[in-house]
Amino acid sequence: MAFRLEMKVRDYECDVQGIVNNSVYSNYLEHARHEFLHAHNIDFAGLAAEKINLVVLRSEIDFKVSLVPGDLFYIEVEPVRLSRLKFAFRQKIFRQNDNKLAIDALVTGVSLDTNGRPFLPAAIDRLFPSTDKP
Amino acid sequence: MAFRLEMKVRDYECDVQGIVNNSVYSNYLEHARHEFLHAHNIDFAGLAAEKINLVVLRSEIDFKVSLVPGDLFYIEVEPVRLSRLKFAFRQKIFRQNDNKLAIDALVTGVSLDTNGRPFLPAAIDRLFPSTDKP
Amino acid sequence: MAFRLEMKVRDYECDVQGIVNNSVYSNYLEHARHEFLHAHNIDFAGLAAEKINLVVLRSEIDFKVSLVPGDLFYIEVEPVRLSRLKFAFRQKIFRQNDNKLAIDALVTGVSLDTNGRPFLPAAIDRLFPSTDKP
Amino acid sequence: MAFRLEMKVRDYECDVQGIVNNSVYSNYLEHARHEFLHAHNIDFAGLAAEKINLVVLRSEIDFKVSLVPGDLFYIEVEPVRLSRLKFAFRQKIFRQNDNKLAIDALVTGVSLDTNGRPFLPAAIDRLFPSTDKP
Repeated sequence: MAFRLEMKVRDYECDVQGIVNNSVYSNYLEHARHEFLHAHNIDFAGLAAEKINLVVLRSEIDFKVSLVPGDLFYIEVEPVRLSRLKFAFRQKIFRQNDNKLAIDALVTGVSLDTNGRPFLPAAIDRLFPSTDKP
Repeated sequence: MAFRLEMKVRDYECDVQGIVNNSVYSNYLEHARHEFLHAHNIDFAGLAAEKINLVVLRSEIDFKVSLVPGDLFYIEVEPVRLSRLKFAFRQKIFRQNDNKLAIDALVTGVSLDTNGRPFLPAAIDRLFPSTDKP
Repeated sequence: MAFRLEMKVRDYECDVQGIVNNSVYSNYLEHARHEFLHAHNIDFAGLAAEKINLVVLRSEIDFKVSLVPGDLFYIEVEPVRLSRLKFAFRQKIFRQNDNKLAIDALVTGVSLDTNGRPFLPAAIDRLFPSTDKP
Repeated sequence: MAFRLEMKVRDYECDVQGIVNNSVYSNYLEHARHEFLHAHNIDFAGLAAEKINLVVLRSEIDFKVSLVPGDLFYIEVEPVRLSRLKFAFRQKIFRQNDNKLAIDALVTGVSLDTNGRPFLPAAIDRLFPSTDKP
């Protein structure tokens, strides 16, 4: 079952159009990914302090419904393994009062070692099940 | 020739990894789009005040190189017409000191009238040249 | 008894020093004020839509302890009446695990009508008890 | 003569009231302080990487005039020495088109060594001239 995080729109996240500013969804999505990792004992900030950096390679975001001040919503996070070193997060944001899909996103990442070279920590490897191609 | 905007990384835009936080690039890209529109006499905030909202439908961002505190960079914006009502911005961010591509993005949008229905203001129509299909 | 709101530090709110960036506390404090107002049936964003704007005149913030990624904290909000038209929020942020005072703030505000002139909505008047000086 | 930095309001910095969100002024002020320090060969982010942290102890901000999308403004920064270890920045933000004072701020800071103890780097000492008390 997918990981799920409940959040609430804060007024300062909304812009002159009276809706959540587009870039704020990237904040929401990042926070949900990090909470997802935490739930699996992976600490983004702790890794950064050790110079092991999880970095985003690509993000694709479809904006379906605009959230407004005070809206409750939840984010679902699903791990996807793309290749030996690359992994992704399928993330969806739903407005709580009607379960409408607000954001549909796919965020691809990689982990870099202290030399900035891609490598895969065991914990990440376990979390993103390999596609069992022959 | 593509529109070009010069900017500089501010320290508060950087996160615990010591690099520009991913979501901040969405801020940069939005600002560059709005400056591009301004350069063509289209005022995003003014339109919003009249309840004509330019909204983003989809964003695709490839993160190539991480910018760090103090980096100078420039953003190129190129208009792309996708269909009768949909338009897009091809946006690239380059680090200034070596002209390396940092961000490669495609942001698709639509304009909504006061009733939230898609329509195309004449100024937008002119700015995004139609593909000359027969 | 003072209003109290529980929150949690998100990684993207932290800067290159590995701590919550100073300006983010202003976000936290604003959010807590608006939740406090909501709890008393005053809707900041709704008022803004009607061109009644609650604005901050002055903020004083003492930074005592730096919060870090993942920290749980709570914000206490206490209304203070300063004069006929001016009101303030005494706000304190405490780190949850040891109840240490992280932020001590006093934020002074006023409400402006559609013409930008100070006036006091009845709901605000009730919420901020007048000092009964002779 | 005071240090001066020119900036421009970006649309994403404005909130549902159609004006620059209060917390964004803290971003502006921080950026101006860091640019001021850079102009005197002090690199905030570089110091942070060496675990020498310049931290804010207190900020006092008076909000005089609200800036709106597209406004040009400039920030003046003046160093003030408060005591042997404490220093401050007197910062004013002026709207460019009419030189109106928008923000009047005093931000007090201290520098901490790798053990988190206050100390004064020589460069900071030079920048903030001591009050010549007997």
